[in-house]
Amino acid sequence: MKVFRDPVHDIINFDKVQENYILDLIDSKEMQRLRRIRQLGLSSYTYPGAEHSRFAHSLGTAFLMKRVIERLQRVRGKQEKQWLQEIFDNQDLVLCSALLHDIGHGPFSHAIEDVMGVKHEVWTMQIINNPDTEVHELLETYKPGFAKEVADVIARVHPCEMVVKLLSSQLDVDRFDYLLRDSLMTGVGYGKFDLEWMINTLTIGQVDGVPEIGLNLDKGLSIAEDFVVARYYMYKHVYFHKTTRSAEIITRKILNRAKELIISKEMECPPYLDVLFLSKPEDKEKFLPSYLELDDNILWHWFHQWVNSNDKLLSNLCDKLLNRKLLKSRDISGINVVNLISHLKVLEKPPYGDFIAVDNPSTSSYKDPYISKRTRSETDDIEKDKEQREATEQIFLFDTSKKHFELARKSPIIFAIRDQTIEQQRLYYPVELQETVDTLLK
Amino acid sequence: MKVFRDPVHDIINFDKVQENYILDLIDSKEMQRLRRIRQLGLSSYTYPGAEHSRFAHSLGTAFLMKRVIERLQRVRGKQEKQWLQEIFDNQDLVLCSALLHDIGHGPFSHAIEDVMGVKHEVWTMQIINNPDTEVHELLETYKPGFAKEVADVIARVHPCEMVVKLLSSQLDVDRFDYLLRDSLMTGVGYGKFDLEWMINTLTIGQVDGVPEIGLNLDKGLSIAEDFVVARYYMYKHVYFHKTTRSAEIITRKILNRAKELIISKEMECPPYLDVLFLSKPEDKEKFLPSYLELDDNILWHWFHQWVNSNDKLLSNLCDKLLNRKLLKSRDISGINVVNLISHLKVLEKPPYGDFIAVDNPSTSSYKDPYISKRTRSETDDIEKDKEQREATEQIFLFDTSKKHFELARKSPIIFAIRDQTIEQQRLYYPVELQETVDTLLK
Amino acid sequence: MKVFRDPVHDIINFDKVQENYILDLIDSKEMQRLRRIRQLGLSSYTYPGAEHSRFAHSLGTAFLMKRVIERLQRVRGKQEKQWLQEIFDNQDLVLCSALLHDIGHGPFSHAIEDVMGVKHEVWTMQIINNPDTEVHELLETYKPGFAKEVADVIARVHPCEMVVKLLSSQLDVDRFDYLLRDSLMTGVGYGKFDLEWMINTLTIGQVDGVPEIGLNLDKGLSIAEDFVVARYYMYKHVYFHKTTRSAEIITRKILNRAKELIISKEMECPPYLDVLFLSKPEDKEKFLPSYLELDDNILWHWFHQWVNSNDKLLSNLCDKLLNRKLLKSRDISGINVVNLISHLKVLEKPPYGDFIAVDNPSTSSYKDPYISKRTRSETDDIEKDKEQREATEQIFLFDTSKKHFELARKSPIIFAIRDQTIEQQRLYYPVELQETVDTLLK
Amino acid sequence: MKVFRDPVHDIINFDKVQENYILDLIDSKEMQRLRRIRQLGLSSYTYPGAEHSRFAHSLGTAFLMKRVIERLQRVRGKQEKQWLQEIFDNQDLVLCSALLHDIGHGPFSHAIEDVMGVKHEVWTMQIINNPDTEVHELLETYKPGFAKEVADVIARVHPCEMVVKLLSSQLDVDRFDYLLRDSLMTGVGYGKFDLEWMINTLTIGQVDGVPEIGLNLDKGLSIAEDFVVARYYMYKHVYFHKTTRSAEIITRKILNRAKELIISKEMECPPYLDVLFLSKPEDKEKFLPSYLELDDNILWHWFHQWVNSNDKLLSNLCDKLLNRKLLKSRDISGINVVNLISHLKVLEKPPYGDFIAVDNPSTSSYKDPYISKRTRSETDDIEKDKEQREATEQIFLFDTSKKHFELARKSPIIFAIRDQTIEQQRLYYPVELQETVDTLLK
Repeated sequence: MKVFRDPVHDIINFDKVQENYILDLIDSKEMQRLRRIRQLGLSSYTYPGAEHSRFAHSLGTAFLMKRVIERLQRVRGKQEKQWLQEIFDNQDLVLCSALLHDIGHGPFSHAIEDVMGVKHEVWTMQIINNPDTEVHELLETYKPGFAKEVADVIARVHPCEMVVKLLSSQLDVDRFDYLLRDSLMTGVGYGKFDLEWMINTLTIGQVDGVPEIGLNLDKGLSIAEDFVVARYYMYKHVYFHKTTRSAEIITRKILNRAKELIISKEMECPPYLDVLFLSKPEDKEKFLPSYLELDDNILWHWFHQWVNSNDKLLSNLCDKLLNRKLLKSRDISGINVVNLISHLKVLEKPPYGDFIAVDNPSTSSYKDPYISKRTRSETDDIEKDKEQREATEQIFLFDTSKKHFELARKSPIIFAIRDQTIEQQRLYYPVELQETVDTLLK
Repeated sequence: MKVFRDPVHDIINFDKVQENYILDLIDSKEMQRLRRIRQLGLSSYTYPGAEHSRFAHSLGTAFLMKRVIERLQRVRGKQEKQWLQEIFDNQDLVLCSALLHDIGHGPFSHAIEDVMGVKHEVWTMQIINNPDTEVHELLETYKPGFAKEVADVIARVHPCEMVVKLLSSQLDVDRFDYLLRDSLMTGVGYGKFDLEWMINTLTIGQVDGVPEIGLNLDKGLSIAEDFVVARYYMYKHVYFHKTTRSAEIITRKILNRAKELIISKEMECPPYLDVLFLSKPEDKEKFLPSYLELDDNILWHWFHQWVNSNDKLLSNLCDKLLNRKLLKSRDISGINVVNLISHLKVLEKPPYGDFIAVDNPSTSSYKDPYISKRTRSETDDIEKDKEQREATEQIFLFDTSKKHFELARKSPIIFAIRDQTIEQQRLYYPVELQETVDTLLK
Repeated sequence: MKVFRDPVHDIINFDKVQENYILDLIDSKEMQRLRRIRQLGLSSYTYPGAEHSRFAHSLGTAFLMKRVIERLQRVRGKQEKQWLQEIFDNQDLVLCSALLHDIGHGPFSHAIEDVMGVKHEVWTMQIINNPDTEVHELLETYKPGFAKEVADVIARVHPCEMVVKLLSSQLDVDRFDYLLRDSLMTGVGYGKFDLEWMINTLTIGQVDGVPEIGLNLDKGLSIAEDFVVARYYMYKHVYFHKTTRSAEIITRKILNRAKELIISKEMECPPYLDVLFLSKPEDKEKFLPSYLELDDNILWHWFHQWVNSNDKLLSNLCDKLLNRKLLKSRDISGINVVNLISHLKVLEKPPYGDFIAVDNPSTSSYKDPYISKRTRSETDDIEKDKEQREATEQIFLFDTSKKHFELARKSPIIFAIRDQTIEQQRLYYPVELQETVDTLLK
Repeated sequence: MKVFRDPVHDIINFDKVQENYILDLIDSKEMQRLRRIRQLGLSSYTYPGAEHSRFAHSLGTAFLMKRVIERLQRVRGKQEKQWLQEIFDNQDLVLCSALLHDIGHGPFSHAIEDVMGVKHEVWTMQIINNPDTEVHELLETYKPGFAKEVADVIARVHPCEMVVKLLSSQLDVDRFDYLLRDSLMTGVGYGKFDLEWMINTLTIGQVDGVPEIGLNLDKGLSIAEDFVVARYYMYKHVYFHKTTRSAEIITRKILNRAKELIISKEMECPPYLDVLFLSKPEDKEKFLPSYLELDDNILWHWFHQWVNSNDKLLSNLCDKLLNRKLLKSRDISGINVVNLISHLKVLEKPPYGDFIAVDNPSTSSYKDPYISKRTRSETDDIEKDKEQREATEQIFLFDTSKKHFELARKSPIIFAIRDQTIEQQRLYYPVELQETVDTLLK
């Protein structure tokens, strides 16, 4: 047994013989790289403890997947066992997919996705399928054709539907791990749910002729509610926190400004950053080595350097970020759009106009847009996209007679928030504009 | 109240009016910099969760100091109140010193101290006393002369002995926080002790005519033992862990190799790294701005770059560190020195000789060498050094009749380990030499 | 400081000088008696860990009250301080009321209330006001007239409205303690909420001209939701658990049968049980000494004895309870009343008819019927009742401009459950009737 | 799966099909009886939370045994697997023995053992072997002859040595559970150890030709130390706490006084208490039904009744116990025996002489006298006793080359306390004698 100690799961272990493929993958260059990428980007500016890496989350996800499979092996019922057989026959595939599901993440993930115009899911596919990566080589050595299988599971186009669903659904282990981990590390009182009970009540049933992972109705209704509400709070208080968003907005502004300067040749493109500033989406393959060098350290290094840039805007933005002189924010959810536009005209003038931003993050309380957007596939090819399995967007509860119920039908709490978006509308501005903002928005 | 959520203390709060000086210091450039320096350096290579920053530890230390003072305010006894008055009269001084006690730390602290020949304590003095830092300015704005006072408390030369002792002793809040924090973040089962009980049993008494912070004998003996043993385990299992030390050894080798190349002009000195490679101890003041730019990100950035160095040794070392291809280790505590020297002659030959290291970390189980070494003062000036207050190296217990007992006199457990050093003796070597090592040390 | 260790609050402490009145009350006969009465009655038949006493809960409640007052002392604002002054001026009154609020509870509280026709709140008044109790004597020795004041606060007729509200409201410390304690002891995953954050966000504001304790809107909305939902789950899964209710139903049947036998002189009334079986509500004073002897042990002792009763029904019921051969239950929430009545006619025949019960516990999800029922007063005198202060049934949130919002107006989650009753409708029957029930209710 | 929620282990589960025998035993009359016997007797007089029952501890022990077996199934090595085979082949036997190991405990266990002159281990044998108990019937129905096997494992005379050792040793699950449970419930900071790591490092090796359960040397040394020290603290601070002992002394005095009165016919023997006051050790079988009625409730009931006894001593003692008016205590560890005897002559005079006691509890820090005393066998027959397997009194550590080391050889901490007895010497006296005691022992 190889044992990792972990603040969330205490002991994470993988068998040195039977799960050796997992241990090899963990040691790969591309997985080790995730040690240098924070799970929550700039959240530590709000919650000083939130410095945990995507590496720790990936380990936790693979370990939870192992625990879920162990639980499912104890599910009774001939029919149920048959439905689950696909999972048991593909345990290696499931575990590898869980470990590698976030392998394509870069530093400040959402910010760089916008600058590059390439989603991290696309890089995930690249890293797994490209013959030059250690991950790819390990998967293929383990079993020829295995890399593609893993990639297909993550992209939700693999023919084993149960395997795909186990990795991507409303009740997936990715979510279990990140809620608990982010909650512990930030120190907030939200995001916790009773993991042991959750695992204990997992089961399988049939919905419209299709097998689905779900929960026992009697024992699982409250934990399902608790889990959805935990996610709801984490978005509200952590992921969409105004201070964190402020730091993210500055980061975006830095990257956009740097790109302008580099494209207009006013600034040289630093090593490794070509993938960020000079690549086109179709050049992914060529830029993969460069992308694999990107991590939090590299970007922070350049933010330091750019404090000394001749470009005042870039320099100013980097100083703000490094020394946590963040933008102020104001809730504008009640402001009429026409008024807002006219206010912005006033604010977006020199010398502070470059520091203005309107921010409007949103997610669904219950249905998960990240899942429904189907963005994990490698291509935008419509035909291929059609083949992609849809992830299960709902949580199902099964009663003792194997009848199924969708969570919101049974839970007034979930029913109440099911169509609500968790959403913020804020105006960000530099402290120097405080008075102007106060006057405009009084 | 300004509130920080924290995985260790849950809620850390400072009053926006009465403790505003603390909040201002937290926002300073030099404190914010500690966000970018990991508390445990490379320990996350062993314990993936251990990514917490020196910033979080500093907050925790200041907060614990506040709690300890609150506790001491409830101590009964006229004499006791008199001894403690100095602390109550200087609460601002105590809190600032607690917050800033680690302000001089750099990235990979012990490694860079060796390369530069300057201890982090020296930088702490610089940062607090240098008129160009934000920290200095804030302290002086708060109260003229206050910066020097804070520096003197940290350096243990301040005339208020009780204040000095409260910050630096066997029972100090620095240690309370780091043991609990490092234990939680690594996920190990060691290092925990009953903080609430510890604080609850703190008291003050007199030892040889001198007031000392200690514990009630009846209620405090076991918690004192538990605390000393917690520290003992943390050194053994975390701070001296063979994998972490392996990564640290490679880091040292990288820095030393880079220094050679830079001094011999085979490589250019990168921006900000002049303080590391080109400064002399007496130039500290000049290099302070450069030192303040150093953080984990900057060094990791150059480790990436140096993978591509023309110097094969440097390139190889950086590759090993980045991709966690660490050196193997072997316990050599039983090996005769003469034999060891002759083994090293065999091993330290090309092509792997540059990757050999003998490592021998040690600390005292009970007396703390970091304290007794008196290294916190700014100068090595013997006269000045004499004035420096010695930190209390022992834990005292006071019975109801105010008689004092040194912990080891009352505790067979502490007596047993009091003169033991926690120590490792290991040989580190690259995996390619495994067979040779096996043959030599069989 | 007198320190109690506690699984919920860790350290509970009271000052031996300033809070001596609390320590004296704790040592009184009537408080010590609460050690022998389980907080959750028969819940340990469902959750084996739930053996905690009403004594521990009372300590926890008084301690939390102390913490809440400490928090309120840090609230800013001249107006706010004025509103709170009444509380600060009456700290002793508030703490004593918190400690003694449950002093009148007896064993299997709700069951014996029904048998006696006297609520535990009435006994609480008796114990505090009756000159023969140690509690009364201590209160009067502390301050003449103090016993009546404490009783009036608990009965919600004391003129200090803020003091009354602090003890009895939707956000009171009684509830804080019992949710956390019952959750920990049962080991369920529900019932937890972020106590530290709750206390930290408590504040005071004005609602329709009346000062009310509430929460900061920004920081308190989610914790308020979490708290209401925690209570909702505890009722659903713990307090109304079908197995616990089954044991309670048997207990009621035992007591009712014993009463029949005693009144009809078929059985002698055992010592101390006269208060249960032979007292009339108007004789409370006379029976107080007897009531004060009642505890879990006494009743269990007689359940043992009655296993050997000549009365087969009594004997059988006691055997069932002692050996946990509980009644089976079936959800009948969907059954038409007319049908149910006709089913009961079938079931309530010899030989098993005496073991049938219909159970229908309910509580409000948000508004608390225990509070609105105004049952705490000593008399049923309508005039007196009118004077009784109504407890605050709602949770208020105050924004930075001191505007107030009722929780359900701001929270879709609470809005969804606000008018829902948490309710069960179950038929209980002995296992021998399983087949009959299956046939009837198929 | 039948699931129990538990404050210590969270989820305790047993398979309704494969582990049905355990669930049946749990439902038996004799196991249910353990719900009415507190694990820590009168400790709740010191630690109000410590109300947990022997029932919860028994469940926890059986569950931990299951976890340990699961762990051992993952141990590598052909030889190791062979040694462990006996355990795997007898999993039902091991689990039943773990569940039933404390089945013979009565209320206030050590006090009634003295009064009756019969150890609880003897009752355990009786309950398992007597054909009239439900436990016996269930075991025999499961497998004829199984009851004797279970009894033999508990008595340590079963021929399967590994099975016996697994249940009774320095590293047994009984101890794992009670340390963690007693620590949590009392709320003390001691007694905790890293259970997950402990289980994770369990292994098997050979000591002097005999297989022994032990720990990996590298990973297990510190957890072994921590575990031994946890037990050391629990004895010191919880099991031997002066307040708890004071209550126990009064209980013993009550029982002894009641016995005197009953034997001299001054008082009638209450129902069920004949086993306590009138049985002879050789009549165990006859008195078993009576013993099975004894529980905490019955004794407390009589303590209530006896407050009204005509015998002033009995009445006074019962009043003291019920209302927690305990005896004062004084450390007499330094007092010369001759002096002590002469002091006792002064103190043991009317009117307070009956309330004097000298108390001297002791246990070994490392070797466990309860184990070495071999008291679990049913008879005192020397021949039979010889056959009894000795429990392993030491903790063994195995290095990678399978060499074994006894813990104290490797651990200076354990070496230091190995021959120390944890011991108290106290004089107990009523508060009225305070002055006399002060004068005598000044």
